[in-house]
Amino acid sequence: MARTGDARDRLVRAAMTSFAERGFHATTTRDIAAGAGMSPAAVYVHHASKEELLFLISLAGHDDALAVVTGAAAQSEDPADRLREIVRAFTTWHAEHHTTARVVQYEIGALSPAHRKEIAARRRGIEQVLREAIGYGVQRGVFSCADVPGTALAMLSLAIDVARWFRDDGDRSAAALGELYGDLALRMVGHRG
Amino acid sequence: MARTGDARDRLVRAAMTSFAERGFHATTTRDIAAGAGMSPAAVYVHHASKEELLFLISLAGHDDALAVVTGAAAQSEDPADRLREIVRAFTTWHAEHHTTARVVQYEIGALSPAHRKEIAARRRGIEQVLREAIGYGVQRGVFSCADVPGTALAMLSLAIDVARWFRDDGDRSAAALGELYGDLALRMVGHRG
Repeated sequence: MARTGDARDRLVRAAMTSFAERGFHATTTRDIAAGAGMSPAAVYVHHASKEELLFLISLAGHDDALAVVTGAAAQSEDPADRLREIVRAFTTWHAEHHTTARVVQYEIGALSPAHRKEIAARRRGIEQVLREAIGYGVQRGVFSCADVPGTALAMLSLAIDVARWFRDDGDRSAAALGELYGDLALRMVGHRG
Repeated sequence: MARTGDARDRLVRAAMTSFAERGFHATTTRDIAAGAGMSPAAVYVHHASKEELLFLISLAGHDDALAVVTGAAAQSEDPADRLREIVRAFTTWHAEHHTTARVVQYEIGALSPAHRKEIAARRRGIEQVLREAIGYGVQRGVFSCADVPGTALAMLSLAIDVARWFRDDGDRSAAALGELYGDLALRMVGHRG
């Protein structure tokens, strides 16, 4: 049982590497098997289709990101601190996990309809945390925001796009970028800091 | 001569469709030839490698986007109107050209070093227009912005990411999204509208 888990983990990691390098469609089951040091037949023994491996990667990534924003939202009762912390943490996460995030974001269309539905539920969860944090500040009278869903969408989009261009050896650290975007989020809701 | 141009245009369009559907790496020259209604040999007659076709698509996309932001920047002497118009136009462009923009943004790593350099120059040009527009408002005392390059980066990133999630049949039109993001950009520079 432990060995089976190990083998599956190796397959997931090998799939991740291949998808990141060549994209989902250009990756073959043979590539993944070779990356995991297994025979192509072994991949099927573990019931691991290419699509299922993509789903496992996507699921783990979304669960992790949802936990990050939920945890951030719980850190403060102050609307400004809460929103800044959510955007800071979500941005930093995308910088630190840029390879995973790129695969997960760009290959979402390759998931089966049933798998896509499971991922969509988690994405709505993340969006909901952000909408509530903005709405909470509006309700408290410290944010001015005429379009809460649109502003939440913009903040998520800003953080997610970090995965596209972030490089580990770039000018800005993941932490510094998180700080910058957290502050920009407060400006986007008209908070007078 | 005209016929050669037509054939190349057909190849570029067919390449665009294949890259958008399956990604650059999973697209074969044979796929592109079939999409253009040509034999694979005809592709080589037109000196069109897969990479060269990607470069032509990327070049046209970047030239178009650069013209859009440059044109937007020239429309007003007022710093707020200028910045809003640049972000509005750049955002709307990414919504309207989301298929092209996705291919161009996600496959940039597949370009040859020489081609990548040509594209990078245009990207710096777009970034420069935005930095100047923010700097202009700071200089005039109507924007407050401690990190002009970081804020310019965030605005570009916000607009570019539209290509990832925008759908023609979605809730927001390209125009409405441009308006929203133009307004958010003014908030990001602390403009008191």
